Amino acid sequence: MTALQRSSGAAVNRDQVAAFYDAYFDTLDEGRLEEWPNFFAADCRYRIISRENYEAGQGLCIMQADSKGMLTDRVRAILKTQVYAPRYCRRFYSGLRIAAAGEREVQVKQNVLLIQTLLDKPSEILACGAGHDRLLLSEAGELQFADRTLVLDTEMISNSIIYPA
Amino acid sequence: MTALQRSSGAAVNRDQVAAFYDAYFDTLDEGRLEEWPNFFAADCRYRIISRENYEAGQGLCIMQADSKGMLTDRVRAILKTQVYAPRYCRRFYSGLRIAAAGEREVQVKQNVLLIQTLLDKPSEILACGAGHDRLLLSEAGELQFADRTLVLDTEMISNSIIYPA
Amino acid sequence: MTALQRSSGAAVNRDQVAAFYDAYFDTLDEGRLEEWPNFFAADCRYRIISRENYEAGQGLCIMQADSKGMLTDRVRAILKTQVYAPRYCRRFYSGLRIAAAGEREVQVKQNVLLIQTLLDKPSEILACGAGHDRLLLSEAGELQFADRTLVLDTEMISNSIIYPA
Repeated sequence: MTALQRSSGAAVNRDQVAAFYDAYFDTLDEGRLEEWPNFFAADCRYRIISRENYEAGQGLCIMQADSKGMLTDRVRAILKTQVYAPRYCRRFYSGLRIAAAGEREVQVKQNVLLIQTLLDKPSEILACGAGHDRLLLSEAGELQFADRTLVLDTEMISNSIIYPA
Repeated sequence: MTALQRSSGAAVNRDQVAAFYDAYFDTLDEGRLEEWPNFFAADCRYRIISRENYEAGQGLCIMQADSKGMLTDRVRAILKTQVYAPRYCRRFYSGLRIAAAGEREVQVKQNVLLIQTLLDKPSEILACGAGHDRLLLSEAGELQFADRTLVLDTEMISNSIIYPA
Repeated sequence: MTALQRSSGAAVNRDQVAAFYDAYFDTLDEGRLEEWPNFFAADCRYRIISRENYEAGQGLCIMQADSKGMLTDRVRAILKTQVYAPRYCRRFYSGLRIAAAGEREVQVKQNVLLIQTLLDKPSEILACGAGHDRLLLSEAGELQFADRTLVLDTEMISNSIIYPA
C-alpha cells in the first residue's frame, strides 16, 4: 500500500484511511445519523446503485444525493418517518484498497456487508457490495468523501434500503 | 489511530491490538476453548448482552462471568456437555476502534459477525454485534481483557449461544 | 505481528501481506478470472477442502490444482462453461495471521466468508472457512502463493463451488 506523500511531507497512510472508515461505519452502526453528513465535503456525491446498472453505465440509483445539503435533508426525512419496523443495521468491511489520484485526493475501494436485525428476529444479510470512493484531504488534514458510490450486487433490495451505508 | 505511549517509551499500536484480537478469535474458531481464559486478566468481566438491555442500562446478560476462574469453570462445563449437535462457530470482525483510557489501558470497539455451521448444513449467521472492551497492558508487555462485553443486535439467540465469542 | 527481515534489509510486513490479499480477493470479486493464476508461483498447489477431511488428514478435495498450468486450465474451463445461472461471488476476510517460515517464506491464515448473489435474488452465504496458506517472496520482492488451502466449515457446498476463492 503506497503511502501518499502530502506537500507538507506527511502521508495519508493505510491506517489513517482505515480509521476514517472505522469512524464512518461506527457512526452509522450506532444510528447517529445526524453526524453522517459531516463525513462529506460540501461539494459531494452519494450514491447507492446496483452492480448491473453501475457496470452498464446507467445512472439509475437506489439512493442519490448531489450535495452535503441533500444528505442533511435525507437524514431529516429518515428521522421523521416512523413507518419502518424498528431495526439495526451493522456494516462489515474488508479489503481496503487505496490508490492515489492526486496530491490531496485518494481513491478507495472496499467490500461492504450489511447485516440487518429486526428486533426479535435473527440477524440477516441485507446486501453486499463494494464502495468505490473518492476522498479529499482538507487543509486541516481531515479526510472527507467527495464521492461515495456503494455498488450492491443485488437489485432485490431497493425497497428496504432505509439507512445509508 | 493514536499510538498510546507507554512509560517505557514503547507504544500499543493498532497492529498490536489487531494481533491480539486475531489470536483471540483464532483460538476460539479452532475450538481451543481451554486456552480462552488466558486472554483475560485474573480480575476481569466477560459478558454477552443484547443491545436492547445494554442500551437500556439493564444488567440481564445472555452469558456472564466475573473472574478468570469463572471462565475456566465455564470451559469445563462446555467441554463436559454433549447435548449439542456438533457445530463450528467462526468469528469475523471489522472496524477496530482504539481509544486510550490510561497509561496501561485501552478501550477497543469492534463489530463481530458470528457464523455457525452445523455439520452437513450450510453456514448461517448466528448473530452480529459489537465488542465494547477494556484491555490492560501487563508489565511484561502483554495485552489482556479486563472487560469483554459483546453486545448482540438480536435477543433471539440466547438458547443457541453455546461457545464464547 | 513480527516483521520478517529479508536479506536485503527490507521487511515483509503486515501491510504488504494485507495488500496482497486485498488485490487477490478484488481480482476474484470483479470476475477477472484470467488474472487469478498470476497470484501463484509456477510450482504451487491450490485446494478447497472440507474442515472434516482436512482435520482428519484425508486428501479428498472439493477443488484441487497442483501447478500454475492447472489453474490456467481451470480458468479456461470455467469461462467456457455456460451452464451456471449468472451470479456474483464476493469475499470477506478477517483475522490475518502471519508467521515466518523462512527468509523468503511466510505462512498466513485468515478467515474467509463467501457471499453469493444470484441476479434478482438476495445475497446469501455460500460458505465460510479459513485459508491456510504459504507465500513466497520472489527475488523481485513480489509475494506469490506456493500453497493456498481453503478449508471450508461445511461439506454441503461441493456442487455449487464454481469460482475460486
